[in-house]
Order: sequence, then C-alpha cells, then structure tokens
Amino acid sequence: MLPIFRVQEEDAVRIRPDDLRLVVQAVFEGVGVEPDDAKLGADVLVTADVRGVDSHGVSNMLRNYVQRIRDGVVKAQPDWKVIAEQPSTATIDCDTGLGIMIAPKAMAMAIEKAKQTGMGAVTMRNANHSGMISYHAMLALPHDMIGMAMTAAGPQVLPTHGAVPRVGTNPIAVAAPAKHMHPFVFDIATSIVAANKLQLAKRLGTPIPGNFLADKDGRILSEPGLLPAEYQLLTMGGTRELGSHKGFGLSMTIDIMCSILAGAVPSGFSGRGPANHFVAAYNIAAFTDVEEFKERMDWYLAEMEATPPAPGQERVMTPGQEEAEMEVERNAHGIPLHREVVAWLDEICAELAIPRRW
Amino acid sequence: MLPIFRVQEEDAVRIRPDDLRLVVQAVFEGVGVEPDDAKLGADVLVTADVRGVDSHGVSNMLRNYVQRIRDGVVKAQPDWKVIAEQPSTATIDCDTGLGIMIAPKAMAMAIEKAKQTGMGAVTMRNANHSGMISYHAMLALPHDMIGMAMTAAGPQVLPTHGAVPRVGTNPIAVAAPAKHMHPFVFDIATSIVAANKLQLAKRLGTPIPGNFLADKDGRILSEPGLLPAEYQLLTMGGTRELGSHKGFGLSMTIDIMCSILAGAVPSGFSGRGPANHFVAAYNIAAFTDVEEFKERMDWYLAEMEATPPAPGQERVMTPGQEEAEMEVERNAHGIPLHREVVAWLDEICAELAIPRRW
Repeated sequence: MLPIFRVQEEDAVRIRPDDLRLVVQAVFEGVGVEPDDAKLGADVLVTADVRGVDSHGVSNMLRNYVQRIRDGVVKAQPDWKVIAEQPSTATIDCDTGLGIMIAPKAMAMAIEKAKQTGMGAVTMRNANHSGMISYHAMLALPHDMIGMAMTAAGPQVLPTHGAVPRVGTNPIAVAAPAKHMHPFVFDIATSIVAANKLQLAKRLGTPIPGNFLADKDGRILSEPGLLPAEYQLLTMGGTRELGSHKGFGLSMTIDIMCSILAGAVPSGFSGRGPANHFVAAYNIAAFTDVEEFKERMDWYLAEMEATPPAPGQERVMTPGQEEAEMEVERNAHGIPLHREVVAWLDEICAELAIPRRW
Repeated sequence: MLPIFRVQEEDAVRIRPDDLRLVVQAVFEGVGVEPDDAKLGADVLVTADVRGVDSHGVSNMLRNYVQRIRDGVVKAQPDWKVIAEQPSTATIDCDTGLGIMIAPKAMAMAIEKAKQTGMGAVTMRNANHSGMISYHAMLALPHDMIGMAMTAAGPQVLPTHGAVPRVGTNPIAVAAPAKHMHPFVFDIATSIVAANKLQLAKRLGTPIPGNFLADKDGRILSEPGLLPAEYQLLTMGGTRELGSHKGFGLSMTIDIMCSILAGAVPSGFSGRGPANHFVAAYNIAAFTDVEEFKERMDWYLAEMEATPPAPGQERVMTPGQEEAEMEVERNAHGIPLHREVVAWLDEICAELAIPRRW
C-alpha cells in the first residue's frame, strides 16, 4: 500500500490484535451473527489490520457491515445453499450473507475437492462483502495448495474510454506457500486503487497522483491534487496507453467467473447490492513434488527480492513481503487505529454493553 | 492493439488466409514437423493474423520458429509426456517442443477432465513459444466451457523498482462463449506491451508513449519518443503509482503456475530458453445453466459496448470485439503482410521447393 494511505502515528491509538478480535467478535454477535461466524468475521477483519491492509480492516469495514445488517440489506444468519456440484466444482447461493463468513466455507469445499481430484473451484452468488480477498486464498496454504479468490462488486469503475461505471473494483488474490520464506500473497484491485483506500486518503487529507481518477464526465484527471468532491475510478493502468484496457478486461473476466458462471447478473450492472465471489484451490502434490515446490518458492522469492534496484529506488519487493513484515511489527506493537475509529468502537461497545479492552 | 503497431497499407501485400495457411504448413513440414502438427501450427499463426494480432502472426513468429528448429533449440518432433495426472489435473514435460503444437493437446486433456469433474488444468514445462495465447483458451468455446491459458517466458521485463529483468512478458488469456455475440476473448501481456509489438514499432518507425519503457539502468523513460537502441520493458501500469506492481505480481503468479507448479525453474530466471505454459477449462454446465449463461453473456457484452463514451472518445470496446471485427475484414480482404515479410516467405519457399500461392 502506498504510504499516503496510512494513518499518521500522531492520530493513532495502538490496540493489541487479540483485544480487537474479541471486541469485533462481540460486536458481530451483538447484531445477531452466530458465535462461530462472528469469530470468523473478526479474524478476517483483524488479519487485514495485522497485515497492514488498513483499507480492509476494522476501521473501514466494521461500521459498514453493522449498518448493512441493521438495515436488513445483509442477513446476519443467512441460509446459504450449494445449488450445483460436481467432483471438482460447486455453486453456492449465499442468501445475502457476508462473504467474509461464507467464502472461508466455500474455500474449505474447494480444498476438499482438490484433495480428491487435484483442484477445486466454488462460485458464490448473492453474497455480500468478502473483506481482504487474500484471506480466503491464504486458507489453502496450510494444505500445501495454491489458493485463489476473486470478488465481483457493484459498479464503481469506468470501462476504458467510458463515461459511466460498469465494473467493480473487482479484486483477485493468489497465495502460494514457501518453505522458510513468507508465502507469496498477491492481492490487488483491478481498479487503479481500492475504493476503500480513497476513503482513507480523504480522512487523511493526502494528495492523489495524476491519471488516477476521472471527473464526473469520464475525463481523466491528469494532474495530481486533493481528492475532488466528485470523481470516478479508473481501471489499473489509468490511461489506455499504459494498459487500462488490461485492468478493464481482467475486471470483466472476474465478473464472468463470479457472477455469470454462478447464474447471476454481473455485479457491474446490479447496483450497489450483492457481491459475488469465486475461490479455487490447486493441490500442489497433484502436479509436482511438494517439497521441491516449496524450496523453489523460497529461492524464487529470495532471488527476486535481491534484484538490484533502479537508480533512486530502495528495493524490489515481492507480493506478500510487506504484509509479512507488517505482521511482525503489529503483532508486537499493536494495530494503529485512527482516534475517530476508536471513538466509534467505544460508542458501539457502550450501546451493545460490550466490555472495552483498552 | 494500438494503431501504431499496425503495418501501413502502402507497405503491405494482402494474402488470402487459406493460401497463407497452406504455405506456413508446408514451411513447418519442410523443417521436419509432422504433417498434423504442421497444420496445427499454421492454424495458430494464421488465426492470429486473421484476428489482427499481427505481433503474434506469421510476420513475427514463423522466421523465429524456423530458425530455432534449425538451431536445434526447438525439437520439430518432440517426445512430450504426461508426468503426473489426477482426475482434474495433469503435468506435461514438452521435451522442448513448440507450445503452439502441444498446448492445444493439453487443452484437449483439460476439456476432457472438465467434462468428467467440472474443470481441468494442465501445466506444461520445458516447452517453447505458444503463439497467440488466446488460441488455446478459445479451444474451450465449442464445448461450452470457459478456457484459460498462460505462458511464462524468459526474463524481458523489470520488476517494479528493479534494474534487471526478472519476469517475462507472461501473457494470460480467458475466453468465454456468448450465444449470438462474439465470444469474450481477453488476451494480454502482463508487461505494458508485448515485446513482439515493439519489433513491429521498430520496423514501422512509430513513436513510443512516455512511461512505456525504462533505460538500460532501469530509469523510467517518462517522455514519448522513438524506440531507443537500448531499453527495458516495464510491467503493465508503467509506474508504481499507476499500478506496475499489479502487473509484476500477476507476472510472478503466472511463472509460479506455469513453471514452479510444473516442477521447473521459473522462466524469469532461466535465460531465453524454454517457456512454460498452463491451460484450464471450466465446464459451464457444472456450475449453472448453459443457455442462460450464454444469453447473459450476449446481454453483458452488448450493454458494455453501449456504455456512453467519455468526452473525446469514440466507443467502449470489450475484449475480443476488435478481433471479431477484424476476422470479418481479413477473411474478406486478406491479411496485410509487410513486403519485407513476403520477400522472406518467397525466399524460404524457393529454398524448400514450396509452390508460392500469390
């Protein structure tokens, strides 16, 4: 994540991950989520915070989830169902439950199928937000599998050359295990930036680079500046010349795999309602020797990170490296939450009679 | 493809696709390829030309393949083998054969597995060039499946912030069928541009945009200009701010799936030798109703293409649309080949005693 999207230390209160986990779990239970799901949901959010993915942690997401459950848009106790199944595949209807709680169950199915057949994939329609998408991909790692997860969300991003948003920020994540090194964890929005990160930038008053956003009519804002009142997101690359059509095509691919393959309307055309998801697991042992794979991953990551940097650059980083470094730091020193977020947590704890832990 | 990478009409000779197919097949046979494989290889190359993907057609590739076969780097008649197999997966050692001829066979295996289990995936090590990667993905379409194909190639592209190339241009393609509309065919290099397109730009003397390339030390060339004598490729996005780390991470993902998962050294570290590949097929019927899927794809493509354009832009295009339009034009009017390419074809036809057809 670019440093411009991080909370400043002087505005932050540091909270221990385990304390935050228990409070978030209690908040979910307080709005009607079953204890097991509440615990799972808390783990998804706090894992994002521990890994430094602040945009998808407690600060940005919990308030939103609570509001959507209270508004009746998201079911706290969904009656989700497998509606199609084959030895390697399944389709789930999520009954408007939260993706953060159903995607891990879908991933468990994919892993089980991958044990039997070599790989497994599960597509999920009619769900809600899935949090940090790499959480679900990473569930494959302890099973010596490669995990993949994708989400198709409501229209927020312009097609290349378009004036109206028709794709979501549609993230994709892939996780692959190493032996002694940190795992490879690739997790990106197909938009130039995750919408949540702009919320953080707004809160922090930080400037936005040129070619990052378009105005309300779809004209690309080529000069850097503060976040304008009205703006639209571009796909990764920004301009056509630098590859925005690649981000756009990848985003459409994700909507096809998550939505149309699950029998649903593409999320890019379904308003700000349900999100749809797709997870897959590849059993390394079905393809090659697991130990050799993991040792070669160690070597690949280490060699890549040792690439000589370009003039003026500090180092080459691999996907998952910064997040692994952040885990060490935040497990030791706590998660920095903006004072304003802590104030909201204090309020909801008082309202739901949850004992605060800080 | 940007128009800057197209051959100018005044430098072109138009050749009928079927004539070109027969000549290319004869050239492959002339250097020792079996007739069935020669026919398949010719179809991969000429299909790229017919679809307007000139960078991966006869002009750029055939001469290279012939040279590599004659140099003994590529085996004309490889003894490729399945070295691991599960109900949904397989690993192939390609014995340094051309990917253009082995990837279609791997895709046929993936399709067969997807009929049985819902999906199939085959990884291929120790191969050579796979041509236009979407050719292999599109083989899934007549089976009402979604096809995917990826290639990991030798080091040609800088990691984000790096000074030395450590990833290939590593393309990925996904093809999904529609009912009456053109199929969705997404096919991109994870570099900002395919290396082959720069060869075309050099031949055509066309200018290169800013933030497209780096100099020999890894400094990004921010101003537009002619192709410099020495340059290095960037991943898609160009700069870190506009998302080059996303292209870089996707490129590493592809090397993991194509190379390490197949038991091979990542292509980004294996010199300009073998390329490794990965293909997969998803059986739509395993997930949802096929007719509904294809009708919804029609609707999705049509609605996306009807997106109001941004000021100054002509239209929004979907992946595969331009290529489908080009198929109509080139099947009717022939494939424009640069005079210099036709001269080379004339030479090799004379050398191998192949009757020319133009």
